[in-house]
Amino acid sequence: MLLDAFWSEVLGTATLILLGAGVVANVVLPKNKGFGPDWLLISFGWGLAVFAGVYAAFKSGAHLNPAVTVGLWVAGEPFHDGGQVIEPTFSHAMVYFAGEFVGAFIGAVLAFLAYKKHFDQDADPATKLGVFSTGPAIRSYGWNFVTEVIATFVLVFWVVASGKTPSQLGPLAVALIVVAIGISLGGPTGYAINPARDLSPRIAHALLPIPGKGGSDWSYAWVPVAGPIIGGILAGLLGRVWIS
Amino acid sequence: MLLDAFWSEVLGTATLILLGAGVVANVVLPKNKGFGPDWLLISFGWGLAVFAGVYAAFKSGAHLNPAVTVGLWVAGEPFHDGGQVIEPTFSHAMVYFAGEFVGAFIGAVLAFLAYKKHFDQDADPATKLGVFSTGPAIRSYGWNFVTEVIATFVLVFWVVASGKTPSQLGPLAVALIVVAIGISLGGPTGYAINPARDLSPRIAHALLPIPGKGGSDWSYAWVPVAGPIIGGILAGLLGRVWIS
Amino acid sequence: MLLDAFWSEVLGTATLILLGAGVVANVVLPKNKGFGPDWLLISFGWGLAVFAGVYAAFKSGAHLNPAVTVGLWVAGEPFHDGGQVIEPTFSHAMVYFAGEFVGAFIGAVLAFLAYKKHFDQDADPATKLGVFSTGPAIRSYGWNFVTEVIATFVLVFWVVASGKTPSQLGPLAVALIVVAIGISLGGPTGYAINPARDLSPRIAHALLPIPGKGGSDWSYAWVPVAGPIIGGILAGLLGRVWIS
Amino acid sequence: MLLDAFWSEVLGTATLILLGAGVVANVVLPKNKGFGPDWLLISFGWGLAVFAGVYAAFKSGAHLNPAVTVGLWVAGEPFHDGGQVIEPTFSHAMVYFAGEFVGAFIGAVLAFLAYKKHFDQDADPATKLGVFSTGPAIRSYGWNFVTEVIATFVLVFWVVASGKTPSQLGPLAVALIVVAIGISLGGPTGYAINPARDLSPRIAHALLPIPGKGGSDWSYAWVPVAGPIIGGILAGLLGRVWIS
Repeated sequence: MLLDAFWSEVLGTATLILLGAGVVANVVLPKNKGFGPDWLLISFGWGLAVFAGVYAAFKSGAHLNPAVTVGLWVAGEPFHDGGQVIEPTFSHAMVYFAGEFVGAFIGAVLAFLAYKKHFDQDADPATKLGVFSTGPAIRSYGWNFVTEVIATFVLVFWVVASGKTPSQLGPLAVALIVVAIGISLGGPTGYAINPARDLSPRIAHALLPIPGKGGSDWSYAWVPVAGPIIGGILAGLLGRVWIS
Repeated sequence: MLLDAFWSEVLGTATLILLGAGVVANVVLPKNKGFGPDWLLISFGWGLAVFAGVYAAFKSGAHLNPAVTVGLWVAGEPFHDGGQVIEPTFSHAMVYFAGEFVGAFIGAVLAFLAYKKHFDQDADPATKLGVFSTGPAIRSYGWNFVTEVIATFVLVFWVVASGKTPSQLGPLAVALIVVAIGISLGGPTGYAINPARDLSPRIAHALLPIPGKGGSDWSYAWVPVAGPIIGGILAGLLGRVWIS
Repeated sequence: MLLDAFWSEVLGTATLILLGAGVVANVVLPKNKGFGPDWLLISFGWGLAVFAGVYAAFKSGAHLNPAVTVGLWVAGEPFHDGGQVIEPTFSHAMVYFAGEFVGAFIGAVLAFLAYKKHFDQDADPATKLGVFSTGPAIRSYGWNFVTEVIATFVLVFWVVASGKTPSQLGPLAVALIVVAIGISLGGPTGYAINPARDLSPRIAHALLPIPGKGGSDWSYAWVPVAGPIIGGILAGLLGRVWIS
Repeated sequence: MLLDAFWSEVLGTATLILLGAGVVANVVLPKNKGFGPDWLLISFGWGLAVFAGVYAAFKSGAHLNPAVTVGLWVAGEPFHDGGQVIEPTFSHAMVYFAGEFVGAFIGAVLAFLAYKKHFDQDADPATKLGVFSTGPAIRSYGWNFVTEVIATFVLVFWVVASGKTPSQLGPLAVALIVVAIGISLGGPTGYAINPARDLSPRIAHALLPIPGKGGSDWSYAWVPVAGPIIGGILAGLLGRVWIS
């Protein structure tokens, strides 16, 4: 039943989104101690959110991201369930997806609870949405999509290739890659690079009783889902050819 | 007599609080070279304070935090005294607690001495207290408690789970988790996540001859004690069930 | 035919320049989420760009930089092609150079695509050039050359010496050296320290259809090529004498 | 003759001061790309300067600091000359001291050359001195001395204790401790924590043809020499007792 893989992805992705949404809340919601724009702080926040999430999801190999699951599947790399190596198949991928989307939803709710009093403050509806989901700096679905494809390609190709460069950095390595992507490619779209990271918190935004919230910008919601999936597939294909 | 464990926790927690209170002093007290708000600086300061403290407390496994001691105790993980593994029992936990609270007090005094001339400057009494103890951005005992529970849960669950993800990061890993928590969950309460980190420096604030100091805000003092203890217990319980 | 070495350097240097040019674009081009000057962000961006690039170029030992190739060649250190160790010869160095310059061009084009909508915004032509190539803070070809020689010497001497200090940091170590050089020696010239990093993106700037672009400042272009090459040779010579 | 130890300390300390003085120059001298106050940038700059210096000084165990040499000597820890372990004796300590002071002087000269055109700009004489040597935020020889003693104690006690906490961080660990000390204890005095780091560059400042320079503040010069030596001795004594 792959229960270990499922719950592991739930725990890891919940940790990722709790900390990731948390850093945005800290920076954008009024009266927080970390209030004020600081892209380096945000980039480290998301990178270290991945770091923490990887530890929490050790039983499933810590995908935390449907684009990673897709990329490994395309590349033919194995999945994990508890101490077992399992085949990358459609049904196994579905278990990972389920864990990722459920975990991301739980993480968003926890971030809301941790910052409850700050959500009660007056702030722009778009600002409150920004704690949950990404949005473009300049709205252009085509180019926003391109940016998400490129950024996710870098992430997933790294995941596929990383096993070939021995180091003992463990979860720190992927955390630093996520910091790098945020610093370097996060400017135009806020770097979703992960469908679960964007879609589940957007659903949470729609459902939670957030004072003064506006719409959940569903017209943009397909970009941070489709872009990462395409980027992940392309990276998996290159990985299959180049990394043997 | 567990003298190694006691003195080890004293040394480690003193280092933690000397450096942790130090970064706050640097940022908030007038005329310092690091003066001015920078949440990333503060988050790295506390994280690296843990990093340094872990080295100093190698003989006891470096809890440095009653919430960590409680969490490991609940999870059934062993304690350490010098080179010996010891049972996680009530009396052993008391030795750790004693070392943690004594060490935190010493660290606060040393930070006061290192920044003596800057404490002599005019500054808001709340600012001077802030070098020692945490305080809420928006005072709401219930929600502040929730934030401390969630943030400490992340820390202690990581401590329990970390042994299962091999890496050679050593003390850097827990330091980065503390940086992550500060960046992502520190906005509402200043992330005590450690009863000794908050209570002992608060006592030091009450006792030390600080020019122009105000009250020590005892009405808030229970939150950064009770929240971390509850968060640590919950994390220890989940660890007991999930990490086997 | 050394195809593995060639394509590996292409992949690695493309990653390096995509992320490196990306951080500059994020910081200097209007409306980006990371807009605004932050030298620490830029220094971490380039350092982590190297980090990611090293993983992508694992089949060739990840030079990513003609000055590194020259320095290792002078020091007599081996090159790599797939799993094979190969001699550092003229023709092998040419293969590395080709991969580095081609990869850097591709990376610059990808960065342009990722930031396309932001290049469409109004900005100073020098600002848009700055995404691709370095330029001096105070134009003085002689002193700018000196700065590039010193900064590259630090990088390449570290590459030659690093094998003697065991650690398990892997690609993180060289990434941190690049962060260090950026922070400490990047002020006067923007630290090219790599002929491919500067020349190929400058060519891309000349060729790409960038709205409102100006000249590519060819009169300065020799400095970030010649300085790093001389710095690399000097470091290789000292390495040959001192590191035996 | 201990030539390996001498030249190793020269190379390492020159690297340390080149990069350390470099980051200050970048931040305080006009027209630099990193111009502007940023304590986190400065703290990372000095920490990574140590990181780079440790690699360059691998043949001598990389003290780079007379306070470290004194502390290890007092603690009874061995020194290194090339691949040989040597006794910590007076004459061996003198060789280390000589390498450290000579290297620091060379590093200061190199930093001057790298930033030559920026030293030619108008700036406050105290600012130009600040690239080379530390100075107090609030002048009070007694309390400045106390701060340097405490900060150096943390560094040297860590050096003595670090061998007992296995990790594979290598030079990164000491670099992070130096970052920690800068962030947390650097506010009052600018954290010399190293007699060679302060005295040799001060001599360089006195000798170099720096346009518009003022005095070298010799009345303060004893504090960043005596404070670190006393801090190093105290840490070595505690290390001798506690770390067996």
